[in-house]
Order: sequence, then C-alpha cells, then structure tokens
Amino acid sequence: MSQLFRQLTICGVGLIGGSLALTVRKEGLAGRVVGLGRSQANLDIALARGLVDSATRDPAEAARGADLVLLATPVMTFPSTLAAMVPHLPADAVVTDVGSVKSWVVRELEPLLGPAMALVAVHPVAGKETTGASAAEEDLFAGRRVIVTPSTRSTPAAVEKIETLWRATRAQVERMAPEVHDAILARASHLPQIVASALGAALADEQVDGRWAAGFGAGGLRDTTRIAASSPEIWRDICLTNRAAILQGLALYRGAFDQFARAVETADAEGLVRLFEQGRRMRERFK
Amino acid sequence: MSQLFRQLTICGVGLIGGSLALTVRKEGLAGRVVGLGRSQANLDIALARGLVDSATRDPAEAARGADLVLLATPVMTFPSTLAAMVPHLPADAVVTDVGSVKSWVVRELEPLLGPAMALVAVHPVAGKETTGASAAEEDLFAGRRVIVTPSTRSTPAAVEKIETLWRATRAQVERMAPEVHDAILARASHLPQIVASALGAALADEQVDGRWAAGFGAGGLRDTTRIAASSPEIWRDICLTNRAAILQGLALYRGAFDQFARAVETADAEGLVRLFEQGRRMRERFK
Repeated sequence: MSQLFRQLTICGVGLIGGSLALTVRKEGLAGRVVGLGRSQANLDIALARGLVDSATRDPAEAARGADLVLLATPVMTFPSTLAAMVPHLPADAVVTDVGSVKSWVVRELEPLLGPAMALVAVHPVAGKETTGASAAEEDLFAGRRVIVTPSTRSTPAAVEKIETLWRATRAQVERMAPEVHDAILARASHLPQIVASALGAALADEQVDGRWAAGFGAGGLRDTTRIAASSPEIWRDICLTNRAAILQGLALYRGAFDQFARAVETADAEGLVRLFEQGRRMRERFK
Repeated sequence: MSQLFRQLTICGVGLIGGSLALTVRKEGLAGRVVGLGRSQANLDIALARGLVDSATRDPAEAARGADLVLLATPVMTFPSTLAAMVPHLPADAVVTDVGSVKSWVVRELEPLLGPAMALVAVHPVAGKETTGASAAEEDLFAGRRVIVTPSTRSTPAAVEKIETLWRATRAQVERMAPEVHDAILARASHLPQIVASALGAALADEQVDGRWAAGFGAGGLRDTTRIAASSPEIWRDICLTNRAAILQGLALYRGAFDQFARAVETADAEGLVRLFEQGRRMRERFK
C-alpha cells in the first residue's frame, strides 16, 4: 500500500496502539512512527520490537511533524494530552483515537483543535486481557469491528484515510454516528460489564452457615463473572463518559431482571419458561 | 473395593446417572446395575456401552431387588417415579438422588418411603453441555464437589455407604443440611443463571438505529451470557423447587446492581471504583 501520512505519532504504545503500529510499519502507511508515553520501560520495548522509529515522553516533541496523531491512552486523559500537543502540531494535522466511548471524545476534543485540523474518532472493538507494547500483535484486529464515528470536524478526506488505514489491519470497518455507537456499546459491552461486576460484588463476602457461597460455584459462575476481573479505573472512566447511554442499558436490564424475579415470586411456570427461552434466543442469534 | 449394594437401579441413565454407573461397574460396588428410562434408544446406548446389566421402561420391574435406587431424572419427576417403585422395592431399600435442589426433594420424597427405607439426598455439582447415556464419562466427578444432605430419614449406615460410593468417583464429598445446600446453590448457581438469562432476554430484541445491539458484543458479552443457552425446563423446575432461597439470592444481587446504578447516575467516581474493585475481589478469590 502507499503512504497515507508523513508521520504518525501514537500516544500510548500499548496493546491497541502497538498492534496498529505493526500494520502501519509493515504496509508503509506512514513515513515514520513516533511513540509518546509516560513509561520509558514500555517505550524501550516498543523501540526494541520495532513498533516505532523513535520514542519520547515529551508531548511537544512528539507533536512536531505529526500529520496524524493517534490517542491510545485511557480516554479521560485525551483532552490534556491533545491540549499539550496542539500548539506544536502541523496546522492541518488529523487527530484520531481508539477510545471505547465516542460522543464524549468528540465533545471534549473538537474545541481543542486548530482551525485547519480534523478529528476522526474511532473505536476498534478488540482487546485481550494483556496490556503494554509487549502484548501488541499484528492480527489483533483481523475480522473484528472497527467503528468510525464522523463528526462536524471530520473532513471526508481524513475519514477516507483513517478508514483505509484500519482496513489494512483486515478489520471490518463501519461508520455510524457517535451517539449511535455509544447507545449500542452501552448495551453490548458496558451493560454486561456492570452485570458481571455486580454479581461479583454481591458474592464477594456472601457467607452461608460459615461457608463462602461463591466457592460452590462451577463453570456457570466462572463464565458469568470472568470480566469482573477488569480494571476498575478503565470502567470508572467508561461509566463517567457514557453515563446517559449506560443508564438506558441498566434500565433495560432491570426490566428483564424484574420479570424473572416476579415469575419466581409468583411461581409462574409458564412465565419462567418464556423468559429463559427469550434469554436462550439471544444466545442462538449471537454467533 | 467391595460390594456395597446387591442391585443399583438408576432412574435416568443420562450424563450423571451413566457416569456414576461407570465407576460402580468398574469398582464392583453393586452386584448388578439396572437402568430405568423412558426412551428405549437411550437405554440401548446404556446397554451397548455396558453402563447397565439390564434395562427396562417399567418402574415395577426396575424396582424388584433394588436395595439402592438412584433418581437421576429432572427433579420434579422424582415423586411420581418413586411412588411407582416403592410397592415393589425391598423393604429396606435405600433411595438416593442427584437433584440440584435438596429441601424440596427431602420434603416430597420422605412421605413416600416404606417404614424401613432410608433416603440419602445428594447433589453432585458437576455437569457438561452434553446429555444422555452417550455423554457419560468416568472422570466426570473427579475433583468436583458432591454434597450429601442427610435428613430425618437418613440412617447413618446408608449415609456412610452413599458417601463411600461417591468417594469412589474421586469426588470431594461433603455433608451439609438440605436448607444450607439450597441457600448456597441459590447464590452460587441459580443466581448466576438468572443474571445471565436476564441479560440475554434484555438484549434478545434490542435494536439501536436499526442495528441489533448484541451483534456488537465481543468476548465479554459472550462469556456473560454463555449459560443463557441452558434448558428452560430444567431451570423452570429449579426456580419452582428452590423458590425461597432464590428470592434471597435475587434480593442480594439487586442490592449490588442498584448500588452500581446509583453510582453511574450520580457520577460517583470513587463509588464506581469501590464497586468494580469489590467485583474484582470476588474473582481473585474464586479459583
């Protein structure tokens, strides 16, 4: 493929940023790749693995010459990182990100841009339990969804180049409005996290007759609570930045849960079968 | 090992009953093993695999000579099966089961027993997604918990023999009161099932802007809803036969869920971290 950008600066060369860097370097999509990070140890790994040509901990240095900036740190750090870089960026730089909420990102970042800059907000729906530059892998996005959410500061040319870049990872790229993305992910991702964490929280200290009840759980409890092990700080930030949509998701869930509770309470045999069948139907459709 | 029973009759030679039969036959724990079933096809498989010496669809025939009866069909069928067998059983027969609720089983079966018969209710906490005699495997119970719940009609000698039988499967056998069992399993097994099924039910038909929201879920949604694929009829019966304890489990969960919802609603950053950490703590303890 041909070069799309003269210089890509990746803020946060971790699992997501580092994995994208592998494709960018392999396909020659950027003239050079610069890594910005807080931890020198992680930047050294990124350099040693050839994810980046050079690395720095200074936002101003990282900004110089970057016609593409990729924000790949925790989402609530985007504004301060971008604010520190904007004065040093080329006037026509494109800013993109990999955050898992989109309306908040657009709302917070657009006011920070220079007048000729563009923003193309993106969410690659991919991840693993591992983190850092050492976890980066070229196939991470293959076959996964990458959602591009154009906004008022997205130029058609910038959107086109960002989509070309992501298609190079063999991801399935699709476009939707930021608020549609946030409503969908609130239901498909943020809701399951809270449902699983609430189950973990409910059982964390629950004793029956001196025995820890959860210790008697088998594969069902194991699967249902697996993601409760996720980072509290990452999920705090998602809850704070996608609040309204998550509240809708929680209300949707509460409605279904309350129907189950009522059916148990009233010993409604037919109602129970109907509800368990509705749950099973979702699973049959989810492949 | 030496023989514990002259004749074991297994009512329902499926995954659980058939797997136990493999150990009983291998270790010579019963003089002979008889299978009782509704489906001749499944009984033919049990015979062909050598799980049983003989098979029948007639409860009276299955009862004759059985000094041990193992009930291994869906739990709500136990009373009618046992009632049909009791007149034909030896006067001192021992009755046991593998049902996943225990107070209900004790309450419903004890009045059906002859005056010299004993009941030893048991729950092997094991299972797979597969069913039927063809799914039986000798290692199914190795390292798993088998909970024995003695009651007023359990003689010490009968409890001892049943525990010896289960220890032969290399299960971890422990004893507790039926109501303690039911309270623990309501939290560790029945609650996760309803939590997962309610998530499936909530998302089964949920569309956002013409897109099926759950279709955008990744590994988190997949794990959290896996057991929503379970049999609605089995779970209806568990809900109906362990109602009071399950309602306690649901109330426990609702408390945790409501705390999450309140923390999202009030944008309580510290409260969110504390709740997600509580959920993570359960997972760290659950090995």
